[in-house]
Amino acid sequence: MNMVELIEKKRFGGELDSDEISWMIRSYTAGELPDYQMSAMLMAICFSGMTEKETLDLTMAMLHSGDVLDLSGIDGVKADKHSTGGVGDKTSLVLCPILASLGVKMSKMSGRGLGYTGGTIDKLESFPGFRCDLSEEEFLRNLREIGFVITGQARELCPADKKLYALRDVTGTVSSVPLIVSSIMSKKLAVGADVIVLDVKTGSGAFMQTEEDAVVLARELVKVGRAAGKKTRALVTDMDEPLGCAVGNALEVREAIDVLRGAQAGHLLELCLRLGACILTEGGLARDEAEAESRMLRAVESGAALETFASLVRAQGGDPAAVYDPDRLPRAKYVLEVPAPRSGFVSKLTANEIGRICMRLGGGRETKDSTIDPAVGLLLHKKVGDAVTEGESLAQVHANDPEKGKTAVEDYLRCCAVSAELPEQKPFVRCVL
Amino acid sequence: MNMVELIEKKRFGGELDSDEISWMIRSYTAGELPDYQMSAMLMAICFSGMTEKETLDLTMAMLHSGDVLDLSGIDGVKADKHSTGGVGDKTSLVLCPILASLGVKMSKMSGRGLGYTGGTIDKLESFPGFRCDLSEEEFLRNLREIGFVITGQARELCPADKKLYALRDVTGTVSSVPLIVSSIMSKKLAVGADVIVLDVKTGSGAFMQTEEDAVVLARELVKVGRAAGKKTRALVTDMDEPLGCAVGNALEVREAIDVLRGAQAGHLLELCLRLGACILTEGGLARDEAEAESRMLRAVESGAALETFASLVRAQGGDPAAVYDPDRLPRAKYVLEVPAPRSGFVSKLTANEIGRICMRLGGGRETKDSTIDPAVGLLLHKKVGDAVTEGESLAQVHANDPEKGKTAVEDYLRCCAVSAELPEQKPFVRCVL
Repeated sequence: MNMVELIEKKRFGGELDSDEISWMIRSYTAGELPDYQMSAMLMAICFSGMTEKETLDLTMAMLHSGDVLDLSGIDGVKADKHSTGGVGDKTSLVLCPILASLGVKMSKMSGRGLGYTGGTIDKLESFPGFRCDLSEEEFLRNLREIGFVITGQARELCPADKKLYALRDVTGTVSSVPLIVSSIMSKKLAVGADVIVLDVKTGSGAFMQTEEDAVVLARELVKVGRAAGKKTRALVTDMDEPLGCAVGNALEVREAIDVLRGAQAGHLLELCLRLGACILTEGGLARDEAEAESRMLRAVESGAALETFASLVRAQGGDPAAVYDPDRLPRAKYVLEVPAPRSGFVSKLTANEIGRICMRLGGGRETKDSTIDPAVGLLLHKKVGDAVTEGESLAQVHANDPEKGKTAVEDYLRCCAVSAELPEQKPFVRCVL
Repeated sequence: MNMVELIEKKRFGGELDSDEISWMIRSYTAGELPDYQMSAMLMAICFSGMTEKETLDLTMAMLHSGDVLDLSGIDGVKADKHSTGGVGDKTSLVLCPILASLGVKMSKMSGRGLGYTGGTIDKLESFPGFRCDLSEEEFLRNLREIGFVITGQARELCPADKKLYALRDVTGTVSSVPLIVSSIMSKKLAVGADVIVLDVKTGSGAFMQTEEDAVVLARELVKVGRAAGKKTRALVTDMDEPLGCAVGNALEVREAIDVLRGAQAGHLLELCLRLGACILTEGGLARDEAEAESRMLRAVESGAALETFASLVRAQGGDPAAVYDPDRLPRAKYVLEVPAPRSGFVSKLTANEIGRICMRLGGGRETKDSTIDPAVGLLLHKKVGDAVTEGESLAQVHANDPEKGKTAVEDYLRCCAVSAELPEQKPFVRCVL
């Protein structure tokens, strides 16, 4: 086959067939196609799009570029949850222990964060000693025994995605629905789960800033998942303001623990219940959403969910005592309050800006080689719609450098608007597919 | 500056400013921008296009990526002619000697051909000993004394174009009006002529197959030339059938000589007169087209044009006697006639297919490293609209391999249609801008 002909076919609106797509991905992964041809193809895809069949073919070609985990030896419903990423998103830390305590097998393959969204592994590394470099044996044993295991992306899974993602990142071709869908779904399929639930974020802190774009992406993700034979659901949820109250690794772990021990409600719990209900009903473990949600709430009340979380921490080398006594987690030296400049209602909290404040405090990676300070971050006392009086604290800044802390306070005031009237609010869950 | 941001700006329909374009071209030429980023940008330009200002900025940035010839020490009108390329296009071999004999300075910088269109240098190398690697001193002396000089593209002119063209060729980004315009015009401007005339071909043997596309390209070329301060004209002319009767290097030289000595009229002469009239009127050497054409015809009748051609051949190392006795040019061993399969009118002669027949006979380069056989090619006895009787020769195949010759005869019959009725014919010159 001739790559120039394939590029031109796509450029002029043609449909690539299965053989062409699999040849292209195989050759690119093997280093036989140069980056400059692939980047021209990626840009042509950004403009010309891909049909449903092409997107599925691309996903399968990327899936088969590497190993596929075999979970057939594991009993029960194997499920996976994926979020398109947002600020303060510690959903996996809450959802997975709850579901695992109900018998679902949750094997998370998670990345590290880059930029202003933290990765689940970064958050868990707030437990000193926590490690994600599990052997396949450990991985399968933990999954079988605890029902929840988390690992970094193994090198052998979807090498095509790794290579393509790095290229997209430097060629302005990240935002393309078929490219995003094939990247996400090839990795989800490689992990071998039967049930996949996707949390597509929308708003200022999300990759898909408009709800319309998020719904399109969610729909395509579900189509490919189902076409590949998986039970697949998707939610579109708000990421205009950060999720929950904590932004920053150890602070987010503490918040997750609060939800797991039944001490905090709100959007984070709501999201976990809605996502979990999809998995439990699709997996045949609950008749309907209501039953699913009540089972999950019971797992929280009984302490079973928190216990599962402690088991995970222990099994992966961390100190489980910190789950019951979160003060053992890293804490920042300086805690600064952000006083409200006037009375009124919080009308806006720009999630991406708040993510960047946390990153500048040292809580996120500015480059791939940055090291993360787990202790720093923000605690949001007031979320959008909350009333506030002048001088009352809007949020807490947790810093290990007093200068950076002061700057964070000033920056926070710039991304938090207080208005005289109660702002109009959209529902947190925009749609369920 | 950040290349990813520039790529995204162009991808989402933004206009690049002068600084951004010149930074990009400078960095790419210096090897500081990787090919994979430039190819993504090129594909984004293919889809999003470029404004007039961007195209001019790109042209100027490519022009200033290397040296610019300084012809200020040469008296008189300095002119340049460019063709977008076609089959049997030996226009420069006729036009340049005629104009040079009338005092115009024609400094041609010409490429070698690749694929089915031959380069002017390839044709001139039919004269044994002819060389194009002139020193700058020789170049200027010949231009001053003969008024006509031809050289290969010097390495120092428009290195950005060289690099970009090679990349476009392998990334499916050749056909884009702003990229074609900047490539052509940066090279034309680098040669330092005051008057530029462009021959944009349209039809099966042309890059721009539809007349509509060719007119768009011609218009953009003229805009950029004029914006850069040059007197610029363009013609859109037919390349559905080959130009003139000869296809193949030495055969085309013979045909050019026939026209130069007044022994052949037809489209080739017509084209030379129309292009030359643009140059003579724009250069202030003739009041109008009629005066320009009659001066050119006198230069042919007087033998001055042919003499100038002989001077060029002598000055560049070839045997000028072959100009007066073309039998001294290389001749093929086998000459085969192509008999008409029926009586009627020639209704179609597919130029690109005829170009490929010549290439397969050895007269063109299939790859950059192929060597060319100057002797082989085709002589077309019947052009579109000509009447023919069954068995009469449609064309002659000149081959040095009898098998290849036979194949060429068969191939020719497939790209030449003979119909019962006189075909409708479009004018040869479609428009003049």
